[in-house]
Amino acid sequence: MKIGGKPYRSIWREADGSRWGLVKVIDQRWLPHELRIEALRDRATFATAIRDMWVRGAPLIGATAAYGMAVQMAEDPSDASLDETWELLHATRPTAINLRWALDDLRDRLRPLPEAERAAAAYARADAICEEDVEINRRIGEHGLRLIREIAARKPPGEPVRILTHCNAGWPATVDWGTATAPIYQAVEAGIPVHVFVDETRPRNQGAQLTAWELNSHGIPHDLIVDNAGGHLMQHGLVDIVIVGTDRTTANGDVCNKIGTYLKALAARANNVPFYVALPSPTIDWTVRDGLKEIPIEERPAAEVTHVQGRDAEGRIVTVQISPDGTGARNPAFDVTPAHLVTGLITERGICAASAEALAAMFPERAGASQR
Amino acid sequence: MKIGGKPYRSIWREADGSRWGLVKVIDQRWLPHELRIEALRDRATFATAIRDMWVRGAPLIGATAAYGMAVQMAEDPSDASLDETWELLHATRPTAINLRWALDDLRDRLRPLPEAERAAAAYARADAICEEDVEINRRIGEHGLRLIREIAARKPPGEPVRILTHCNAGWPATVDWGTATAPIYQAVEAGIPVHVFVDETRPRNQGAQLTAWELNSHGIPHDLIVDNAGGHLMQHGLVDIVIVGTDRTTANGDVCNKIGTYLKALAARANNVPFYVALPSPTIDWTVRDGLKEIPIEERPAAEVTHVQGRDAEGRIVTVQISPDGTGARNPAFDVTPAHLVTGLITERGICAASAEALAAMFPERAGASQR
Repeated sequence: MKIGGKPYRSIWREADGSRWGLVKVIDQRWLPHELRIEALRDRATFATAIRDMWVRGAPLIGATAAYGMAVQMAEDPSDASLDETWELLHATRPTAINLRWALDDLRDRLRPLPEAERAAAAYARADAICEEDVEINRRIGEHGLRLIREIAARKPPGEPVRILTHCNAGWPATVDWGTATAPIYQAVEAGIPVHVFVDETRPRNQGAQLTAWELNSHGIPHDLIVDNAGGHLMQHGLVDIVIVGTDRTTANGDVCNKIGTYLKALAARANNVPFYVALPSPTIDWTVRDGLKEIPIEERPAAEVTHVQGRDAEGRIVTVQISPDGTGARNPAFDVTPAHLVTGLITERGICAASAEALAAMFPERAGASQR
Repeated sequence: MKIGGKPYRSIWREADGSRWGLVKVIDQRWLPHELRIEALRDRATFATAIRDMWVRGAPLIGATAAYGMAVQMAEDPSDASLDETWELLHATRPTAINLRWALDDLRDRLRPLPEAERAAAAYARADAICEEDVEINRRIGEHGLRLIREIAARKPPGEPVRILTHCNAGWPATVDWGTATAPIYQAVEAGIPVHVFVDETRPRNQGAQLTAWELNSHGIPHDLIVDNAGGHLMQHGLVDIVIVGTDRTTANGDVCNKIGTYLKALAARANNVPFYVALPSPTIDWTVRDGLKEIPIEERPAAEVTHVQGRDAEGRIVTVQISPDGTGARNPAFDVTPAHLVTGLITERGICAASAEALAAMFPERAGASQR
């Protein structure tokens, strides 16, 4: 999508005279205040970029890991290098299913190849993963657009469809379009008025930092709200639909997403607000059924809770402490929304119920493969 | 309760050689980083202190308004002054029921008196309001202690009772003890191990700023969590009981409290966690039945959402912007938890169900009075 009128993706290769060019990303830690672009030149920097969340969002993490493997193959295409890089990159964000999916995909493709062919194959595959992600999200947008169009049709002309979203499942979380935002961008392109309520998404404030930033960049009407406010808005009929992303969804339709998603799903159910999850199929973990019991939840540093980053009055990006010295914190990064609270899953193949049967019917070749 | 070993209340009169002494409060905006104490010398300063949240919490707002009226009566005890001060102070925080209750109480008592007797009567009544609040909270603590004791009895010896609370219904929200915290302080005094999960409570972070501060000051084990995390903790059996305060509770038992309380009540219900509200009876609004339809919700400035206050690396208390320039915000300050989600109300007379019948049975003289 666009920043200041110029089209961007969240990760890309840029020609620099070398054989493979340079892999570049937006270092998203400085958004919404500064647009910093970084070149990732070696696997250690890729690991840092994923672990320290220069890049985040399941699809972008997968794409970044794929390029990380490619960069390392150009350096050292040996089996040992392949395995070590898999381990190094996999350890950065263990909850992210796309990370493992991309790393397994690369390893399985590269292992049978002669060492001399591995770098080219890895770059080609990483490029293809990016293109596949863009196409998946474009299709999710098309299917989600139908939901928004149906709501708009029930409203007086000109009245916006009010959409609540949590965290950032926007284009900076993917290669382009975003998942939860793809229907929103397509609705705007189709001339349907929308208004987006953006949860700030503590502790890292991805809503304020990224979702508000990308909507603001496109001139899409929106309001930032605290994570506490969504239930109140739904009680008062101010939300027409909730659309969120997911980091990992089980074969049964349990949705693991940024901490706090579950609370919004409870509020949506209590107030008859449809709750949809934009679900690119690589995010489905067919090996897991019960999300609550089986998905390990990453516990991140306490400092993310006790401190907040922002821009001070002098324009500097600083971190401030909000709690007293001596107070500790618990920081689970994700929660699991049980399938029964999910109205539907918006996949690249269409919208289906959040159930094992509906998911298996939508992706029969994959559901079957995992059960063998 | 104590700060650094020294007993404090949140508001008090201090001898300064003048007839009535000086009214002092802790300016809570600088907690948890600095303990600033301010003298409130005229009604304009009282209005500022309430409106700008130097003081907050329903009981403390009521006590502060009462002293504000007293200070003004010493200045000008006329009927016009009485009415103007009622208007000035009432306009500061329109949602707070205790504010109106205290102002009506003072006006009704002072109006029949000769002007020369009004200041003395007002100070005496403000003092009495403070003592009544302390006694109410002490009794809420006694009744709530029974709940904590019952949970502790079902656990292996030494295993803490895990309590989740939202916002600050601690002693800085009252004159002393707090409402939701009173049972916790009494449990600790009774030797029952507890662990408190403190919601940070965006946008103003009263959990991080006040609840963590007061628990830390007393050495009560606690962890700060983001507002998003409580549902996840409850899903995993990590919360034994939720105890929150209230700014206003209807005759039917609907609970108006800090924004986000409703989401925790939904999660508690979904996970069979008892959800209790510490309810000093002056917080009951007997004139209102349906909290969702009848209670006007204060909308506070967008800057509270787009900005966060904290202490920077140099130790300065600064405000940082977390959102992009150009992004607006909605900031409803409270929400309403319907009575059916509330396990029980902990009042100064005992614990009762959140229903019109149970509240009327507990406070027959007041429930009856409002229905006439």
